[in-house]
Amino acid sequence: MTVNAIVWGENVHERENADVAAIYPGGMHAAIAAALNESDRVSATTATLQEPEHGLPQERVDEADVMFWWGHAAHGDVADAVVERVVEAVWAGMGLVVLHSAHFSKVFKRLMGTPCALTWREAGERERLWVTAPNHPIVAGLPQHFELENEEMYGEPFGIPDPMETVLIGWFQGGEVFRSGVTFRRGAGRIFYFQPGHETYPTYFDPNVQAILRNAALWAASDLPRLEHDVTDAPNRTVGEALEPIEARGPSLHKDGEKGFR
Amino acid sequence: MTVNAIVWGENVHERENADVAAIYPGGMHAAIAAALNESDRVSATTATLQEPEHGLPQERVDEADVMFWWGHAAHGDVADAVVERVVEAVWAGMGLVVLHSAHFSKVFKRLMGTPCALTWREAGERERLWVTAPNHPIVAGLPQHFELENEEMYGEPFGIPDPMETVLIGWFQGGEVFRSGVTFRRGAGRIFYFQPGHETYPTYFDPNVQAILRNAALWAASDLPRLEHDVTDAPNRTVGEALEPIEARGPSLHKDGEKGFR
Amino acid sequence: MTVNAIVWGENVHERENADVAAIYPGGMHAAIAAALNESDRVSATTATLQEPEHGLPQERVDEADVMFWWGHAAHGDVADAVVERVVEAVWAGMGLVVLHSAHFSKVFKRLMGTPCALTWREAGERERLWVTAPNHPIVAGLPQHFELENEEMYGEPFGIPDPMETVLIGWFQGGEVFRSGVTFRRGAGRIFYFQPGHETYPTYFDPNVQAILRNAALWAASDLPRLEHDVTDAPNRTVGEALEPIEARGPSLHKDGEKGFR
Amino acid sequence: MTVNAIVWGENVHERENADVAAIYPGGMHAAIAAALNESDRVSATTATLQEPEHGLPQERVDEADVMFWWGHAAHGDVADAVVERVVEAVWAGMGLVVLHSAHFSKVFKRLMGTPCALTWREAGERERLWVTAPNHPIVAGLPQHFELENEEMYGEPFGIPDPMETVLIGWFQGGEVFRSGVTFRRGAGRIFYFQPGHETYPTYFDPNVQAILRNAALWAASDLPRLEHDVTDAPNRTVGEALEPIEARGPSLHKDGEKGFR
Repeated sequence: MTVNAIVWGENVHERENADVAAIYPGGMHAAIAAALNESDRVSATTATLQEPEHGLPQERVDEADVMFWWGHAAHGDVADAVVERVVEAVWAGMGLVVLHSAHFSKVFKRLMGTPCALTWREAGERERLWVTAPNHPIVAGLPQHFELENEEMYGEPFGIPDPMETVLIGWFQGGEVFRSGVTFRRGAGRIFYFQPGHETYPTYFDPNVQAILRNAALWAASDLPRLEHDVTDAPNRTVGEALEPIEARGPSLHKDGEKGFR
Repeated sequence: MTVNAIVWGENVHERENADVAAIYPGGMHAAIAAALNESDRVSATTATLQEPEHGLPQERVDEADVMFWWGHAAHGDVADAVVERVVEAVWAGMGLVVLHSAHFSKVFKRLMGTPCALTWREAGERERLWVTAPNHPIVAGLPQHFELENEEMYGEPFGIPDPMETVLIGWFQGGEVFRSGVTFRRGAGRIFYFQPGHETYPTYFDPNVQAILRNAALWAASDLPRLEHDVTDAPNRTVGEALEPIEARGPSLHKDGEKGFR
Repeated sequence: MTVNAIVWGENVHERENADVAAIYPGGMHAAIAAALNESDRVSATTATLQEPEHGLPQERVDEADVMFWWGHAAHGDVADAVVERVVEAVWAGMGLVVLHSAHFSKVFKRLMGTPCALTWREAGERERLWVTAPNHPIVAGLPQHFELENEEMYGEPFGIPDPMETVLIGWFQGGEVFRSGVTFRRGAGRIFYFQPGHETYPTYFDPNVQAILRNAALWAASDLPRLEHDVTDAPNRTVGEALEPIEARGPSLHKDGEKGFR
Repeated sequence: MTVNAIVWGENVHERENADVAAIYPGGMHAAIAAALNESDRVSATTATLQEPEHGLPQERVDEADVMFWWGHAAHGDVADAVVERVVEAVWAGMGLVVLHSAHFSKVFKRLMGTPCALTWREAGERERLWVTAPNHPIVAGLPQHFELENEEMYGEPFGIPDPMETVLIGWFQGGEVFRSGVTFRRGAGRIFYFQPGHETYPTYFDPNVQAILRNAALWAASDLPRLEHDVTDAPNRTVGEALEPIEARGPSLHKDGEKGFR
């Protein structure tokens, strides 16, 4: 199976900030997609905020096996309808990889149910990422630790639910730590949050980072068809349909088969 | 410490449906609060949808150690501002006990980040609840299983994240199963979802159910002061404040100490 | 990749009990392996208690991607050295699928660190298994529930740690429930416990059960090389090797690079 | 309720190493117990390796609400019977706080089911502990971070199962990180592992460390009576005892009420 990946990029600082444009002239989304496409098991395309429906019409989302999400300056500009579309796709089985400042994206906060806050410092300091889950598919082929000479500091406390798995923890030169790689399952979808990727540094050209992106695409993608039933629906099972014979007893609010309250 | 509990009730069917009114003439919230107040370690008051701010002004929420939430017919009528107030209180340390049909409340869905859907049948069938976590504080003093002769069937799949702890699983006469008692931690707040409590049956007068409500109040309540800092804020740590000496390197988007993007 | 699976069977009741021999004339391990081999992505062989080293010499364990384990009457006869070999393989990345009465196997108890106890009844009653994690790879292609007309009842409380994921919950005709499909990660290895499979019933010929076995093989198997370093070793990092420059301070028990205590 | 705590200390280096003896002339266990006894809600006594049954006869273990465990040089000298006694007490509800080098104690490895390995360096370097779970009862009253000017480095990967909660992460001057405070539930018992506490430094006199020890005693202790049933037993439920009427069907291995295999 070839994993069908969509890399969503906000594409704001790449166009408005000269430092960022110099590093990512084609946009960060393009660099991330290129890294993914170095794998013959992944086929990545891009989508950006500025396109109609932010490049994420329903049909396109329906066909994605995994989505990558990078945003920073314009979280508030993402249409709620698109956010719900992406969130429902995750619940129905699409994988999601949330990158760096997208910790504050509507999509991630919506899926976590927590503030997803942290502390930060933009000093170009050294980060060292430690693998805490050796041989996890997301760190396949990686060394036990690797360095990024310049990264934005993200510090604990990170306002997320306790993860399913903690895969990477970051050490920062200025004295902080951060859970830099964590996994979740929400509905049928797998989610990976990965901290590196500040736009003023060439992080997405780092070979270790690129390997993790490719691994994460394969890990988060599901090769199963999306769930067909509406995962937000609460279907009534009538007395007649009961799998063991029962008879209705006592008062009831609903007629058999009626819709429930929401 | 005496736990300060607020029991929030929607208070709709108790006033509009004769069967429900006959069982809970003072409202379900009153019955639940009375059960809590049988403990000398809990002091429970009530709040309802129909009161100004649904009975949950900021000052009152600020003083609660734990909140119980029962709703069914009018989830959509709960003001979003009140939902956010309750959710933020949980993140800052308030306990929350979510009852029965409140699986579809705005508050619970917001905190879970998942659809919280299930299947259901209103047949007054027998439910048997099995303790899966013996000696968990929430089931202190309970037998290994107990029966409710009439309950609404709630069936799997239950659209929640994998819980921190599974405390109770329900067996239904008609052939279904349900994770009827599950715990979560979100921010500094502890959450317990408890499935029994359909309004057409006298569930909240059952001694085992009442014991679980009292236990849950004690378990979910925190005796710590609410977190003082804004848990949704991402504070900048300046280079000068760094705990280990560093010097700023490379380009940056922000001036030192500036607010981040949201 | 073709998954290399070893199906380990105790092979006692199949030889000593006429009822079991009539159902599984070639042994249960053979029936399980045959079910796995119906997938062109799995290549399964068998090993039994009676073989030298129980059929699990180091070289063979080294090459397995996943191991299935069924035992009941002779848990105590499994040599501790073989148990440790299997456990260490799991820590280093081998998948493990634990079947039915192997809840009390040395291997499973060793990996869980809990008693793994339960209640049971051998009445040939109906079990209905409910999928609690739709679209989890282990239940790919399965319906939302399926029945086994005759199974041994296993009842809660099940003495395991809270699982990583709860995939299936069983409903029993006699009134009990059980977490019948649960996942864990221990070291680099993925573990799936699956409850059905009492030897006096033809459970392993059931198409839904067989589909789960094949799915579980693919889910638990790792396509990564086994971890090369000794996962039980605690290596000293000398001051000279430190990734950031430090100088030794204060008293110390060990000379640089010396082995630690165990 | 006053929490009855037993502080178990190996008491080897305190007697054999002059540096350690100078810091902890009464033994580390005595210093830890003294810190606990500063709370009027905790009553702590000590036990050591050298006493009969290592100071842990059954009657004494039966009465403990929580046990603290510090060991390093003599893990192998702890009698297996005492290890099983402690482990079974945890399963039945006793709290356990595992300190520093006790990551390699028989008790902790037995309860985790994993190697519990790590990397280490004895350089007296600075550790900074970050609270990752603000307002968790274990860090009540603590600042967001605190420093230990001299600690032994413990580095990831830490060979434990994914914790229930990650409460503290440590930053080390030499470049490593470590999950320095993590919680687990095993059976009815709560477990907290806390990394600081190398015997050549005065860590257990640090006010923040002492506050965590006291908090951990209160968090891990259960005020419930120990589980009365044998948590390692798998009781048979006979057909006649079934909670729903069933009739035995098909062949069976056991007579009604007979003991199961182990």
